[in-house]
This record gives sequence, structure tokens and C-alpha cells, in this order.
Amino acid sequence: MLKAREAVLRLKEYHPPLGERSGMRLDFNENTSGCSPRVLAKLGSLTPDELAKYPERDSVEVVVAELLGLAREQVLLTNGVDEGIHLLCEAYIEPGDQVLIPVPTFSMYEIYAGAAAAKVITVQSDSTLRFPAQALMQAITQRTRLIAVASPNNPTGAVAGEQELLALAAAAPHAALLVDEAYFDFYGQTMLPHLGRVPNLFVARTFSKAYGMAGLRAGVLAGSAEQMRMVRRVGSPYNVNAVALACLPTALADGDYIADYVAQVRRGRTRMLRELDSLGIRYWPSEANFVLFFIGEKRTAFVEGMRRRGILVRDRNSDPGCAGCVRITIGTDVQTEAAIAAMRQVLLEIHYTDAMKVGR
Amino acid sequence: MLKAREAVLRLKEYHPPLGERSGMRLDFNENTSGCSPRVLAKLGSLTPDELAKYPERDSVEVVVAELLGLAREQVLLTNGVDEGIHLLCEAYIEPGDQVLIPVPTFSMYEIYAGAAAAKVITVQSDSTLRFPAQALMQAITQRTRLIAVASPNNPTGAVAGEQELLALAAAAPHAALLVDEAYFDFYGQTMLPHLGRVPNLFVARTFSKAYGMAGLRAGVLAGSAEQMRMVRRVGSPYNVNAVALACLPTALADGDYIADYVAQVRRGRTRMLRELDSLGIRYWPSEANFVLFFIGEKRTAFVEGMRRRGILVRDRNSDPGCAGCVRITIGTDVQTEAAIAAMRQVLLEIHYTDAMKVGR
Repeated sequence: MLKAREAVLRLKEYHPPLGERSGMRLDFNENTSGCSPRVLAKLGSLTPDELAKYPERDSVEVVVAELLGLAREQVLLTNGVDEGIHLLCEAYIEPGDQVLIPVPTFSMYEIYAGAAAAKVITVQSDSTLRFPAQALMQAITQRTRLIAVASPNNPTGAVAGEQELLALAAAAPHAALLVDEAYFDFYGQTMLPHLGRVPNLFVARTFSKAYGMAGLRAGVLAGSAEQMRMVRRVGSPYNVNAVALACLPTALADGDYIADYVAQVRRGRTRMLRELDSLGIRYWPSEANFVLFFIGEKRTAFVEGMRRRGILVRDRNSDPGCAGCVRITIGTDVQTEAAIAAMRQVLLEIHYTDAMKVGR
Repeated sequence: MLKAREAVLRLKEYHPPLGERSGMRLDFNENTSGCSPRVLAKLGSLTPDELAKYPERDSVEVVVAELLGLAREQVLLTNGVDEGIHLLCEAYIEPGDQVLIPVPTFSMYEIYAGAAAAKVITVQSDSTLRFPAQALMQAITQRTRLIAVASPNNPTGAVAGEQELLALAAAAPHAALLVDEAYFDFYGQTMLPHLGRVPNLFVARTFSKAYGMAGLRAGVLAGSAEQMRMVRRVGSPYNVNAVALACLPTALADGDYIADYVAQVRRGRTRMLRELDSLGIRYWPSEANFVLFFIGEKRTAFVEGMRRRGILVRDRNSDPGCAGCVRITIGTDVQTEAAIAAMRQVLLEIHYTDAMKVGR
């Protein structure tokens, strides 16, 4: 009888909580106002012939590499960051190799590392949910082959310091250090300039968040030219679709659209934190387009109350160290005001009292 | 120092011969007239919000499953057939397992099997380039974990018989038998009805060929519900982009467009074979939208002569058993006539004589 690999049999199944998503989308950290209108115009200008041809990513990789200040050979466009993580695991992890993952974090690192038959070692943040740099350093062994760090991190919004990351890369030269900068646009700091000097460093970027193109599936994996040659070997030459490739240069050229959206998110983030302060609700400082805060046992009623008011937020209770927590995406100014008004009403409705606000 | 997996270090790099493709595209077996105009209209109707959201494939999988006469759990939409092959290799192949690949065939089987650290065993067709059923049967061992069969096969156009495939699946119950039906629409026979009864059978389909949507990257991998659960585990929930998902139901609904295109290809195929007969050029019978024929040492001059006349065809000389061969995609009636006229001219131009036609 046909039997899946041992590592696959052990693998947890990941079921994204999608399904019907009617309402204001403050649940998946996407761009909540959609992509640039210019991208849509580009979409409408595509010809049947362009769709019928196998996609060629090369020329677009040149454009993206230039934008990122990298050599063309350092850049691989991927089918979302998911594929970048997948390829990295497949390129480097032999069965039994160790993968270090600070948690809580994005769930796909653990899935792809597990699929590659790695021994996954999660490193728990303390109650501040800050990047656990010291604990990670101590967890490095000769078998460490990948360290996956989202910075800013999801669902916490915390960032890893440049020096901390460089120290990690130096302490584990036999491991790939992936810095997933999916939320870079809302933060502004990047490890990209170190790619030339740190041979085991990889940086991931995405057009799913600030750029509003999660549906198009376009990510970037960047590393040293030598290592990227290995990563390319395990992927398909046709991994990124022609629509994404056609739209990317257009999206990149419309800097004003992104700048305006990012400015709204930054304003909204400050506004939301001030509001949480005044409501006496505990939260974690965020450099991303979302905020994690503590509701406690009433979190299900809170999420449901928001949903009834047409606003989708995400229960993160089952993330390690996030018991009782809810994550809300920050969108446009108007959306932030609507979300705050709804939060106030829902907290009253669920009889959320000071006694419940202590935190964990 | 960071070192790629042994299997990756050994892996051949695949460089698709793309780059500039100006002219009549008879080189990649795509739909040469483009996708249905209805698909294009659908594309133009997408909203920024639809592009900004993570894609949800579930509802489209229901539509595709229904069309294929399968249960929803049996069907996984993939980022082209490439991803289906990749996931199948990752789900089942432990390092050192054996993968049987009849050759010549589509090159990605060997790449993904190699990336999974399989021992790849190629089984060469004889000079008829027919499906080597007997040789495959004899190559099965206890370590055989995957048998990858394209039917119709690329670049030969040959098909594997239903009984031959069933016998293979029965002889290797501990292996996955992948029947890649990428060219199904030009053939008409399928293994799909056997999926319920043969637990180790998988069938792949694509919308890159007849449907003219190679740029959108949409494939299907189908198998038993139980096995597909394993395959799903190693993939991303967001592997197929939102544009492909939005356009697929529209494309499937426009049956007339496909029927007309397929009818032209079938007519053109007959017409091309008759022409090759009259030119005295050896060819291999094809059930796909292309024909492989023998030119010999002048093949480079032939391909170049066609290109100068604005027609792109593909040199298959380096495929095992295809020395001296060229492959031409069959498109619309008009394109077939143009291709034939150009072939006649080029053969004269390169002084192609009867003495060169002997075959291999």
C-alpha cells in the first residue's frame, strides 16, 4: 500500500480559517483598500496571447533586483513568501537537521520545516513577546540548518534588531538565517544591505501586504548569488503567474499609492494604541500593520461582536504565549475609526470590566 | 559554511529556453490563439478588493471536481502541473526511493524526483518511441515509490494504454502512479474513472494547454481522497492565484471555445502528418497538440530557417532517443497552413535531400 513519508504522516494539517469573509477585512493583514488602480488598469490591458504563454519572470526579476539594490542573481520571485520558505527548506534541510523558530510566529515555517523532516525547535518569547535573541543563540547547535525569523513578527508586531540578527547569522554559519520582511513597508528597516556580506542570510519580501496583491501571489526571496543558485534548482521556472509578473512593475512604479496607504496605517496604529491605552487594554508594541491585544476569556464574544458589526478580526488564542489575545489589522483612517467605535460598543456589550484587563 | 542538501548539489539545473519569443508560437505546446475572450472579460471585471485578498481555492475545487466527476476531496488545484509533481514527490519519496520515468518525456519529473533525493531510473523507449510498458513493469522493485507517465507523452505524442497503466498500478501498489494528462483535450481518453478503485493512481490535468491559460498557472492533481489528504499537507493553502481562480469557472463554462480549438488542432494534426508523409519525413504518431519528426543533422538550420520565417519550433535533439528530432506545436487551421508552407520552403533552402530522410 502506498504510504506517505514519515515526516508527512507526522505533519499537522494547516486549515486557514477562511471561508466567508464578508465585512471589513481586519483579519489577515492584507491591504484593506485594495491594490493601486493602475494595477487594475494593467490587468484590463492584458491580451489573450499574454495569458496563453508560459510566464517569464526574468525581466521582472531585473526590475525588482534594481529596486532592492541587489544583483539580479540574488533575487528569486516566488509564488508568495510561502513558496520561498518551501524552497529554502527543500534546498538545505536534510532529515534530522534542526530548525529554530522563535514563537509565536507565522505558522508556515513549522509546516515546511516539518515536511522537510527537520527537528523543529521552537523558542518561546517571554510575556513581552519580544524577539528572543538570547534564547535563540543558546539553541544553536551543529545541526541547526535554518533559523526562521519574521521581522516585524506576526502576530506580535515585534522586530528583531539588526545586530541581533547579524550575531545569529555569525553564530550559525552552517545554517540559513531567513529574515521574513513581509511587513517591511510598515516598519522601514531591512537586512537587505547585509546580503552581500553575510553569506547565510536570506531576506523574504511580499507584495501581499502593503501592495494589496495577496491574490496575485508574488513574493521575493533574496540571498547571496551562490546560495540562490541552489534554491533555484528545486523550484519551477514557471512558479510566478503572468498576471503578477505583468502587474508588478506597475505596482512598483506607483510609489505614491503605497506611501499614502502606509502613512494611513502608521497613523492608525498610533491612534489604535492610544485608544487601547485609554480603554486600559494591554497590547504589544507593533511595527507592522496590525496590533495584538489581550482580551482574555471574553475574546470569543469580542471577535463575534465585532463580526456582527461587520468587522473581521482574528482570535490568536491558540498561538503559543498568546492565550486570550486578538489581532486587528490596521487599515485606512476611516477603517481605523470604524474599528475603534465598534470595539468600544462591543466591550460594553460583553460587559468587559476592569477586573478582566489584568493581562497574562 | 551553509551547504545545500546533497541531492540539490547533484541536481541538474533546468534552463527553459525562453527569452525572446517573437513569432508564431509553435514551440511550447500552448494554445496558440490564446484563451477564451470570456476569460479576458472576466479578468477585466476583477476588483482591487479581489486582488488584495488571499485566494480561496475551495469553491473552485468544487466546480472542477464536479466537471471531472470526482469528489471534492479528490481534487487539489495546483500552481500548474509542475507543483502537482513537486508535491507528489515531497509527499511520498524518502531519500533513496526509486522513481521510474519512461523517457523521453517532460523534464520536470526527473528534477523534482532528484530534489527529493530519489534514485531516478529512466526507462528508454525503443525507436518507435512508444510507451515502454513491459520495460517499466520489469523495472519495478520494492523501493519503487513513484512512476511518472505523461499520456499523451511530451515530446513524442505517444499514449499509454489504459490496461497497461492499470497493470502498472497493480504491480506497484506501494508506489504512486502519476498519469500526467496535460494533453488530454487533444486525445480524449482518461484514467480519471479509475481513481475511485485504484488507490495509488494520481491524474494530473492542466489549463495551460487547450484552455490557453499557461500564464495563469492552474493545474489539477487528483487521486484518492485518502492520499490527497497527504499531498495537501505539504502544500500552501494559497498556492493558486486569485486571477486563475476567478477565471477557471468562466473558462470551463465556455466549452464551445475549447471544442472549436481542439477540432482545429485535430484537423491540423492530420493535415501535418499527411504533409510529412508526402515530404517523406519520418514522424511519430501523436495524440497531442504537437508532432515530433526527424530532420537529422540539418535540424539546427531547419529550426533557424523556420524562425526567420516567423515560426518558432523546438529542437528536441537532446531528449533521450530523439537525436535529430524537431517538435512542432499544432495550432489553428491558418497557423498549420502557414507552418506547412514555411516548412516546404525551409527544406528547399537547407537542401534537405532524400538521403537525409532515412531516420535514426
